[in-house]
Amino acid sequence: MEYTFANRIGSLKPSAIREILKVTQDPRVISFAAGNPAPDAFPVEEMSAIAADLFANRSAYALQYGVTEGYEPLRELTAARLRGKYQTGTDSDRILITTGGQQVMDLTTKCFTNEGDTVICESPSFIGSLNGFRSYGLNLVGIPTESDGMDLNKLEAALKTEKNVRFIYVIPTFQNPTGRVMSLEKRKALLELARKYDVLILEDNPYFELRYAGEYVPTIKSMDTEGRVIYAGSYSKVLSPGIRLGFVCANEQVISKLTVAKQVSDVHTNLFFQMIAAEYLEKYDLDAHIEKVRKIYSDKLDCMADALHRYCDGYLSFEKPQGGLFLWCDIVDGTRDMDFCKVSGPKGVAAVPGCSFSVDESEICSAIRLNYSLPTFEQIERGVQLLAETAREVRK
Amino acid sequence: MEYTFANRIGSLKPSAIREILKVTQDPRVISFAAGNPAPDAFPVEEMSAIAADLFANRSAYALQYGVTEGYEPLRELTAARLRGKYQTGTDSDRILITTGGQQVMDLTTKCFTNEGDTVICESPSFIGSLNGFRSYGLNLVGIPTESDGMDLNKLEAALKTEKNVRFIYVIPTFQNPTGRVMSLEKRKALLELARKYDVLILEDNPYFELRYAGEYVPTIKSMDTEGRVIYAGSYSKVLSPGIRLGFVCANEQVISKLTVAKQVSDVHTNLFFQMIAAEYLEKYDLDAHIEKVRKIYSDKLDCMADALHRYCDGYLSFEKPQGGLFLWCDIVDGTRDMDFCKVSGPKGVAAVPGCSFSVDESEICSAIRLNYSLPTFEQIERGVQLLAETAREVRK
Repeated sequence: MEYTFANRIGSLKPSAIREILKVTQDPRVISFAAGNPAPDAFPVEEMSAIAADLFANRSAYALQYGVTEGYEPLRELTAARLRGKYQTGTDSDRILITTGGQQVMDLTTKCFTNEGDTVICESPSFIGSLNGFRSYGLNLVGIPTESDGMDLNKLEAALKTEKNVRFIYVIPTFQNPTGRVMSLEKRKALLELARKYDVLILEDNPYFELRYAGEYVPTIKSMDTEGRVIYAGSYSKVLSPGIRLGFVCANEQVISKLTVAKQVSDVHTNLFFQMIAAEYLEKYDLDAHIEKVRKIYSDKLDCMADALHRYCDGYLSFEKPQGGLFLWCDIVDGTRDMDFCKVSGPKGVAAVPGCSFSVDESEICSAIRLNYSLPTFEQIERGVQLLAETAREVRK
Repeated sequence: MEYTFANRIGSLKPSAIREILKVTQDPRVISFAAGNPAPDAFPVEEMSAIAADLFANRSAYALQYGVTEGYEPLRELTAARLRGKYQTGTDSDRILITTGGQQVMDLTTKCFTNEGDTVICESPSFIGSLNGFRSYGLNLVGIPTESDGMDLNKLEAALKTEKNVRFIYVIPTFQNPTGRVMSLEKRKALLELARKYDVLILEDNPYFELRYAGEYVPTIKSMDTEGRVIYAGSYSKVLSPGIRLGFVCANEQVISKLTVAKQVSDVHTNLFFQMIAAEYLEKYDLDAHIEKVRKIYSDKLDCMADALHRYCDGYLSFEKPQGGLFLWCDIVDGTRDMDFCKVSGPKGVAAVPGCSFSVDESEICSAIRLNYSLPTFEQIERGVQLLAETAREVRK
């Protein structure tokens, strides 16, 4: 039969990143294309011990239906950690456990936007979120970013002229894909603008604990006194992404609506791994674990930056990020990203073309995103050599 | 600040079932209100052994990001079992693994309906699905059911008069909440009507393997030669609901769109438990396990039916179902369901008021849904006594 799909979904294509992920299932290809944590960053032994205990002593609970809001001890531990360590969240805020951080964008969009409404975001920005917004038939407005975050003059111009702006979506720390950090001054000013024009902020903050250099910058949510910021967090980068465990911290009225939306989306998040995460937070030292992960990634970032200087000077230029998982490289001679990646793949190294992250999909781009957390040191060295070969070959 | 929610979500209330589930966290209350499997129906030892092996030998894969489509061996085993044992699915069909069966309704609705479109369903029907449809701003049309399924004359009348009908939603086997089975003749006629009026069928079939009496009736999907049926399945009732593992079997074009929608919803389903399920299907005998579960539930159903006859004759009337998890009781004297449940709860037994499942929320109802899979035999006996006390007290 002939299918007629919904208008909202008709134009959506499978994401370039995930298509590339499939190509990289060829083990001979060195992948700088993923956004994956390193497998040695998973606390396997600890999770294994907790799982064994759950199966032995609490399986009747852990395998049964749970409540949509999430496993209460995990909600409490998450709230306490956010608030104690990062001054993020107030007495009026609550936590909802989600099926990965991605679900926070989905539920927030579903609960706060009507078709045709506007969402403002950084450009470039995370493709998964952009496609999520697109899947609700929204008007997406991208604001260029500078090395210290969004261009706030352009943001205010957009807030003045765009109709029905419902929220501003930002990844303020170690942004995906640019790796940039929004400065404290800009965070304050952003919140002020959101107040002035009465719009929400959706703060997506999955990477902020992966800092290798520079000073911690407070979350936007930590400065929010009136429930204007919806804060999306994730255990993907500090425990494991495959378990799909994220959370949202927001005003209780917001959480109440998001919970209703989650109920009809997937009822609740895998309870067994919610309990594993809660036990982990209670029994083990997550901060010590993150410190270990930071060391691994920091060394890999140094390795990639060093190799890029040695092999790709004059071909690829970049600002070394202070944390996160990504290195954003401009192709110096202006070769288009797609042309670059089409050559690099068959040579044996996969990168994500920068245009994947463009808000305006017709935008011409000559940048690539490189991930350094997943490949080994040897793969980084060899992969960067192949990037240099690619750059020489495509040089205009 | 004042929040403005999306139109689609504004009217949605937390479901009565889940609100009642919260009340039943008081361990003194006997709950006939849930839809939970019995904890002794979980294959705990087997899952525990597989999990230990995964942590020891495949954690780098199992805890990492996976593909949106789902873990390939689980997709294959699911397809093979559906097709080999139930002649369900064709060469043009594919499987997408979902975060519980509920996500199939969510993704299907997102991909196939625009706001204001019509979805036709049985009335009463599963509240989670109804609320899911409502959350996309749809026009819901309920068709009364008879003991052998939907009234097809009324269905055809609706198909003739309603505009933009996108799909017909049915739970053909051991329907929730009524426990009824749609006859083979009606299944064939339903498919014929769907063809005639060119609409899709969403077949939600989580309970069909829990049959305790009567003859197996083929799935509607098994008679579908043109990709008109989207088939939603679940491992919740045969393995564990807390792990949130469901799937959809549909034409590859449909699966392709649903996959794009899932990608922006939660990226993929918990990979660790997808692998546990796949290993379970490969190494153990799911059919033997289901046979064991059937015996447990069949005995409990007998126990509840027997107790109802002994204590509630003249107060509550019911048709004994041939399978599933629910017993649907009419309150003989016409007392309203909400009045009944408000009295039964404080007495110590929770049931779900039938109106929760009404498509027309203003409909007056005097039926209750009782679950017999979760309570113990002693609780069933005592709970039914309390229902009888309630019935006497509320008698008009």
